[in-house]
Amino acid sequence: MTDLESLKKQAALKALEHVQSNMLVGLGTGSTAKYFIAGLGEKLAKGDLKNISAIATSKASEDQAIGLGIPMVELEGQSIDLAIDGMDEVDPHLNAIKGLGGALTREKMVESCARFFILIGDETKTVQNIGEKAPIPVEVVQFAWKATQKKLEALDTRPVLRLKDGKPFVTDNGNFILDCHIRPPREVFSLAQTLSATPGVVEHGLFLDMAQIAYIATQTDILVMTKDS
Amino acid sequence: MTDLESLKKQAALKALEHVQSNMLVGLGTGSTAKYFIAGLGEKLAKGDLKNISAIATSKASEDQAIGLGIPMVELEGQSIDLAIDGMDEVDPHLNAIKGLGGALTREKMVESCARFFILIGDETKTVQNIGEKAPIPVEVVQFAWKATQKKLEALDTRPVLRLKDGKPFVTDNGNFILDCHIRPPREVFSLAQTLSATPGVVEHGLFLDMAQIAYIATQTDILVMTKDS
Repeated sequence: MTDLESLKKQAALKALEHVQSNMLVGLGTGSTAKYFIAGLGEKLAKGDLKNISAIATSKASEDQAIGLGIPMVELEGQSIDLAIDGMDEVDPHLNAIKGLGGALTREKMVESCARFFILIGDETKTVQNIGEKAPIPVEVVQFAWKATQKKLEALDTRPVLRLKDGKPFVTDNGNFILDCHIRPPREVFSLAQTLSATPGVVEHGLFLDMAQIAYIATQTDILVMTKDS
Repeated sequence: MTDLESLKKQAALKALEHVQSNMLVGLGTGSTAKYFIAGLGEKLAKGDLKNISAIATSKASEDQAIGLGIPMVELEGQSIDLAIDGMDEVDPHLNAIKGLGGALTREKMVESCARFFILIGDETKTVQNIGEKAPIPVEVVQFAWKATQKKLEALDTRPVLRLKDGKPFVTDNGNFILDCHIRPPREVFSLAQTLSATPGVVEHGLFLDMAQIAYIATQTDILVMTKDS
């Protein structure tokens, strides 16, 4: 395990300390989240945690959790006690970009139902201003996606159709993704609102004002970021 | 032809007067729009209009237009000179509800690209306050639609899953529709913004501040409503 992997695992285990017996937990997706899911399965197997149920944000996380014997339920509008997930970027106010994995809509649906949401990741994901390193993934309906692209250009973003093996990447919901590069600093709350209201847009990867805490693996330590720190 | 049908046709023909040669026209869907499309085809055939191209909001309208020899193009972000469509409800400010036909996302995508947008319909569709007669159709992703339904309930709407032949109705984009009944009067602009920002929502049927004019067939006449009248 590289140092970075080891630190990502430590960040995930920090998040795991928030889980208590009888909780409904939202499981994120990606390289850091998988350490969380593994740790959760271990604690359940050992009996350190009891009566946990979970909701996954992707097929991959669901499969991993089922393999570990974590009882899974469907998202039907329950309040989720705790959700954890990685991110592509996080700023000092815990505003984040997510969705480079392509599951932004499902992730936002699950995590917006959580009473407590924890971001986990490594220091390569921290930025001063949203958009410094990563584009904002925007999920759009396939119909007339070029018209939507033009609308996103008019918002002063550079929207690039995401490809996979030379063909447009298709989300779980059957849509395309336009990765929208911006020039920070931008007023991201108003950008988020405008993106949501743009016809053709299904969801966007700005996760603003959603997380309460972030555990960030650095070269030497686990950095704890809280909303008001 | 019943009196109402005859009046709907008259409203459609009023809208047709706005069409000039060389225009790109957005074609709506439904019982009034079909009179417009028929009239447009006739004027083209007669040579009263030349060099028209059109973009359809549904397969049905596209098929009708192609059958009449109207040249069709794809929506790729062009500016549309004129769009016409029916509505399910329209208030005195020309704010409308659309989507009871199920094509709200495509309709909003086309009509939001139009420089001039005309609503056509009959007087059974006029209301003082949006939501008086019709629910607001909200297109949602299939995944965890019950969670989205709960979020829409929290906005003080009564969201009912649209069925067809006993099964959930599926839109052209592969999504479900929740018909959201409201108790008017509501502040519809802020409701529209909140609906757009709700995770799981693809599009909603509030078409606010989009139309410039409406031709409404009454029992006796064609009522002309303009934005500032």
